Amino acid sequence: MTRRLRLGMVGGGEGAFIGAVHRIAARLDDAFELVAGALSSDAARARASAQALGLARSYADWREMASVEGAREDGIEAVAIVTPNHLHAPVAHAFMDAGIHVICDKPLAVSLAEGEALARHARDANLVFALTHTYSGYPLVRHARELVEAGEIGEVRIVQVEYAQDWLAQPVERAAGSGGANRQAVWRTDPALAGPAGCLGDIGTHAYQLAAFVSALVPASLAAEVHTFVPGRRVDDHVQAMLRYANGARGMLWASQVASGAENTLRLRVYGTKAGLAFDQEEPNLLWFTPQGGEAQRLTRGRVTGTAARHATRVPPGHPEGYLEAFAQLYRDAAAQIHAREAGVAAPPESRLLTTVDDGVEGLRFIEAVLASSAAGGAWRRIERQ
Amino acid sequence: MTRRLRLGMVGGGEGAFIGAVHRIAARLDDAFELVAGALSSDAARARASAQALGLARSYADWREMASVEGAREDGIEAVAIVTPNHLHAPVAHAFMDAGIHVICDKPLAVSLAEGEALARHARDANLVFALTHTYSGYPLVRHARELVEAGEIGEVRIVQVEYAQDWLAQPVERAAGSGGANRQAVWRTDPALAGPAGCLGDIGTHAYQLAAFVSALVPASLAAEVHTFVPGRRVDDHVQAMLRYANGARGMLWASQVASGAENTLRLRVYGTKAGLAFDQEEPNLLWFTPQGGEAQRLTRGRVTGTAARHATRVPPGHPEGYLEAFAQLYRDAAAQIHAREAGVAAPPESRLLTTVDDGVEGLRFIEAVLASSAAGGAWRRIERQ
Amino acid sequence: MTRRLRLGMVGGGEGAFIGAVHRIAARLDDAFELVAGALSSDAARARASAQALGLARSYADWREMASVEGAREDGIEAVAIVTPNHLHAPVAHAFMDAGIHVICDKPLAVSLAEGEALARHARDANLVFALTHTYSGYPLVRHARELVEAGEIGEVRIVQVEYAQDWLAQPVERAAGSGGANRQAVWRTDPALAGPAGCLGDIGTHAYQLAAFVSALVPASLAAEVHTFVPGRRVDDHVQAMLRYANGARGMLWASQVASGAENTLRLRVYGTKAGLAFDQEEPNLLWFTPQGGEAQRLTRGRVTGTAARHATRVPPGHPEGYLEAFAQLYRDAAAQIHAREAGVAAPPESRLLTTVDDGVEGLRFIEAVLASSAAGGAWRRIERQ
Amino acid sequence: MTRRLRLGMVGGGEGAFIGAVHRIAARLDDAFELVAGALSSDAARARASAQALGLARSYADWREMASVEGAREDGIEAVAIVTPNHLHAPVAHAFMDAGIHVICDKPLAVSLAEGEALARHARDANLVFALTHTYSGYPLVRHARELVEAGEIGEVRIVQVEYAQDWLAQPVERAAGSGGANRQAVWRTDPALAGPAGCLGDIGTHAYQLAAFVSALVPASLAAEVHTFVPGRRVDDHVQAMLRYANGARGMLWASQVASGAENTLRLRVYGTKAGLAFDQEEPNLLWFTPQGGEAQRLTRGRVTGTAARHATRVPPGHPEGYLEAFAQLYRDAAAQIHAREAGVAAPPESRLLTTVDDGVEGLRFIEAVLASSAAGGAWRRIERQ
Repeated sequence: MTRRLRLGMVGGGEGAFIGAVHRIAARLDDAFELVAGALSSDAARARASAQALGLARSYADWREMASVEGAREDGIEAVAIVTPNHLHAPVAHAFMDAGIHVICDKPLAVSLAEGEALARHARDANLVFALTHTYSGYPLVRHARELVEAGEIGEVRIVQVEYAQDWLAQPVERAAGSGGANRQAVWRTDPALAGPAGCLGDIGTHAYQLAAFVSALVPASLAAEVHTFVPGRRVDDHVQAMLRYANGARGMLWASQVASGAENTLRLRVYGTKAGLAFDQEEPNLLWFTPQGGEAQRLTRGRVTGTAARHATRVPPGHPEGYLEAFAQLYRDAAAQIHAREAGVAAPPESRLLTTVDDGVEGLRFIEAVLASSAAGGAWRRIERQ
Repeated sequence: MTRRLRLGMVGGGEGAFIGAVHRIAARLDDAFELVAGALSSDAARARASAQALGLARSYADWREMASVEGAREDGIEAVAIVTPNHLHAPVAHAFMDAGIHVICDKPLAVSLAEGEALARHARDANLVFALTHTYSGYPLVRHARELVEAGEIGEVRIVQVEYAQDWLAQPVERAAGSGGANRQAVWRTDPALAGPAGCLGDIGTHAYQLAAFVSALVPASLAAEVHTFVPGRRVDDHVQAMLRYANGARGMLWASQVASGAENTLRLRVYGTKAGLAFDQEEPNLLWFTPQGGEAQRLTRGRVTGTAARHATRVPPGHPEGYLEAFAQLYRDAAAQIHAREAGVAAPPESRLLTTVDDGVEGLRFIEAVLASSAAGGAWRRIERQ
Repeated sequence: MTRRLRLGMVGGGEGAFIGAVHRIAARLDDAFELVAGALSSDAARARASAQALGLARSYADWREMASVEGAREDGIEAVAIVTPNHLHAPVAHAFMDAGIHVICDKPLAVSLAEGEALARHARDANLVFALTHTYSGYPLVRHARELVEAGEIGEVRIVQVEYAQDWLAQPVERAAGSGGANRQAVWRTDPALAGPAGCLGDIGTHAYQLAAFVSALVPASLAAEVHTFVPGRRVDDHVQAMLRYANGARGMLWASQVASGAENTLRLRVYGTKAGLAFDQEEPNLLWFTPQGGEAQRLTRGRVTGTAARHATRVPPGHPEGYLEAFAQLYRDAAAQIHAREAGVAAPPESRLLTTVDDGVEGLRFIEAVLASSAAGGAWRRIERQ
Repeated sequence: MTRRLRLGMVGGGEGAFIGAVHRIAARLDDAFELVAGALSSDAARARASAQALGLARSYADWREMASVEGAREDGIEAVAIVTPNHLHAPVAHAFMDAGIHVICDKPLAVSLAEGEALARHARDANLVFALTHTYSGYPLVRHARELVEAGEIGEVRIVQVEYAQDWLAQPVERAAGSGGANRQAVWRTDPALAGPAGCLGDIGTHAYQLAAFVSALVPASLAAEVHTFVPGRRVDDHVQAMLRYANGARGMLWASQVASGAENTLRLRVYGTKAGLAFDQEEPNLLWFTPQGGEAQRLTRGRVTGTAARHATRVPPGHPEGYLEAFAQLYRDAAAQIHAREAGVAAPPESRLLTTVDDGVEGLRFIEAVLASSAAGGAWRRIERQ
């Protein structure tokens, strides 16, 4: 048996959505054991949350946690960062300073400069830095990428991606209703915590990453605009962009948190010179592959035979997997990479699809380009990469 | 029984796709009788086609047809124009000069100026001028519009429309294969026959019209680019646009004839402050209505009770209707309007959703704005309306 | 041009559902012209209905119509029988006596003996006798049959067919509500008009026929029971049956008119030793073909290339066809067979899939076997065929 | 934090499918810790499997395990039984004798008598005995039951349930191919290990249980036949049954492991006097609710607000859950019941939907009735319950 890695967590105290998801994901494939945490910036809440989880070591402060855990013989080997966005960078630096691998929620940081510094730090410190773009953990998303890489759809011509939700269609970040303000909404619409990008950073980056992941292409330029539909909201809740790729391909990206009726509709279509692919996150056990002029094939998670998909699934055909399994896949891949890094060997090939700090930097490039284009009235703008 | 109207046809000879569709549509509800035609610019082919259809009167030239039919006691009362786009305007003028109502295929004309002249002519001559934007004949498209008008989705915030095909993904307009060139492709990619807009004019205008029809809104400005993927093609085969509406709504429009795998995927989503609507032309017996934060309702053609849908359907729930019935609906509405016009009375309210020359003018405004924006590198541009 | 056949109609006066459908179907492909009718047993209503339709010749009595039309030089060449079931046989005999071809709605008759007599009469008189099992006119139903015949699914092992509606879930045949009794329900639940089988005859026979049509197999024995859920109803509104085939295949058939929520859900699945097929009448432009252990292929009406499907469709891929086009296909095939019969030549191969009096006889065998099994408490029973 | 329960496992060594599923399910909600196992009847394999899992205590023999663990201060509190069916009863008795709670895979046992003895034993020993009918762990299956219980569909009239797979469509239990025999198939088609029911016991019981769970009804009598399509197979691979309920409801059940193309298609429809429900295991985040004569509502896991569904889900709307989460739900419920039993208090209401030994007994009644009916040529037969 591969030894379980000792995991710590920063953020994710009671009431947080994504912290609980990270914990299940870490546990699902039995590759990590959660042993320490600074679960809240509020000391009492941190302690109570740690107790509720049966956590061995609880810290009131993540700086202390980083230094103490880094010094212990049995200290944590990796940290999961599930705080609001503005803390991703300082927390990650602190733990990397302590020689601890990082598994960080997206978006990576609140500015491109911050993100680039994190990437440099991880590279210099020779640490694994995973970024949890969950949807790239789905077996069929990986299969789609494998099909593109194998040339099955030909050269990519068109990329259409969208991510629609409706949970911010009303000003739920304000305590208007009987239940008070929605806590998730409060920090996600506060630029001081979420950064300058609202919907754009929260789900626009997911859409962008998914498109890049599957198409194996990033756009060269874009024209975009962010928009805020809900009066008084301090960040955008809607973004639309047109994309141009270096090879001549074209694309469109739409993300909205005010699309009435939409739950969590992340959809990608990629059309090449030979065939088209379609994936819908709400039906993750299906991938549609349609040859030009031909009939759609309904590929299923259980029956596709590609290596990438096989590695990322656990149960037989017809037994659906979901979001938590996709998330767990990232933890499984991160564990494989950490074990390899510690052993000084190459990471196993099946873990190569893990999204990392570099994907995060690309996401921040996208955010900055969209904001710049939008500020310029939606003018076309190159996405600079050195 | 309402008397059958005498119908003529220009274009639509053997091998033409849309001519046969118009003939079935005209016949389906028994409101027209096809009695005359100038079915081809080639005299022999015109004659043979007329004979094959059992047509009473065949003309080699549409100018002659217009003048002769206009003078006959039992001359045609309406003409269906199903020629390539460049002839729509001259043919329509000739028949209107002869006092004959017009049912014209889309796009209306090859320039906005041409279109505006047609609209003036129809108005001055007090003639019905129907434009066959087929998809607005679907019962559930009409129901969607009725829901929007009744405020059921609240104020419109987002419009997403797309129309994807793949039949032009290869240069089928050139005689490369064993079967020779695709005749439909030949004229549709020839700017002299189709006008300056390829995919944009052929299906982009359908998408635009559908969005406007259902949302009851037209955009105030747009940023767009047309693109030609297939080397050597003389018109665009792909168009993407971002839209801004006067009320602050935002939208995106995508149309492509090189989207590998797509058959005829025309999809519209409209999101308002209260609910969202979704329609897919390939499943025209369904309309999805989803309240904000709520559960999707699968509205069916047979069970919705709105007046507009009821008027536009023929068979009970669960007995699917399709494209030909939608097309027939336009003919049925046109017949009702023509009878009313001839009688000097107001057209029955249930025929008011017929698309007319004015919709065609708006479509040409869209085409010109897209081409101008695209020529300016995709810059934002107002859509001028006086 | 092939000459239009002169058609008459018995039944189908104002307010009748299926008569209007027959008229559209007859007209759609321009193969028939309706010129005479005995549209109602009520003389005034017959006359008014004929007038509303612009019918040349109206009869108060179908017996008179048969003899007069049979004697006229320009008399009808075919009659469409769209009366309640109990009249199918006498009307058909009368017109066959007059040398007139028959197009009859289903079920063929109210007893197997009646049906067998009709089959003998048609054979002896050398007349075409079409039975309008509409669903066999769908292009993809015909394609499914062609796939089975070509061995694409291997030997048939399992047949699952069902037909569910809910319009009889309440006692709508009684004038309980404000709107009075449902006229369709009144005769369909009256054994004197509909025959001894209610749901079984009305839609159970459609399900049975569809299964036989596609699988190219008829069961050797069955165990079945009919049931009446709605108190006071005089015929069955629900039927379930298990089937055994001579080759060892097994099957199940379910039909219900009290299945709350169902509109017109006719679904067939056929599984062979190599692959499975699935068809749903409410999505008639799709056929699912799934190889054993493989991925489903979504076959579409427009893109399948088989001869049978090609012959039965009118518009390009992605332009949906529906129920009326399927119905029209039967009329088109009947016209082809009548022209051939009149010319004394073999019917064209593409018309061979027309359902005829022989399919009706097989349907009556099924009805009688189900009723006998049900009367015997659901015991297994051979379906006798000589 | 609620203390993790110490769990042991019998069966589930390397290569076993369901053992790994049980382990993930037990771990997912952090309610159990696996500490001991007798993972294989082969001693070396048991040891290797335990080592691979990092298991604290490994036993070569489950009898020894039961007595040792029962005697230890820190012995296991519950045992997961994931052996072939014939061992369920003896293993369960042994652990119950040792005072250990049981979580057993289905079917419960290989005969009704065995099952009834287990139920008595559990009752007498006051032990929790969970039976893992996984599909009843889906949030929307529980919601469906809640809707039925609340009268939302009215009185149940019709139950249609089916479970189709194709993995046994060929004789994979024999070492014909290059890869040798399918291990899962070997024991599942061996009556000595699986019991007298093949497909019937393996998946027919799942279908039966699901129908009973949601409808809150069990049939009073049935007519059924099992069938073996694959030559040489020693158990059935196909079963069909018609059902009669005490309240007059009717139903059909079909299960097959030779349905070419089917992956794991477990579908249930329940129709009442007011509305219908439909659930498909391959799309477990959806439940369809359709009022009589009305429009289908697409209920989603994330948005339904019922207590039962809320208790059984972990992530927000639009983030799909799957089979493993449903399975984990049973473990979560079992943990709640065990804690309550140990504390001598009533189990929390939200755990009441856990399937238990009593559901297993009912499943064995069904098996015996089907086999008896089938042996009698498919004759109707009462299902005896005292």
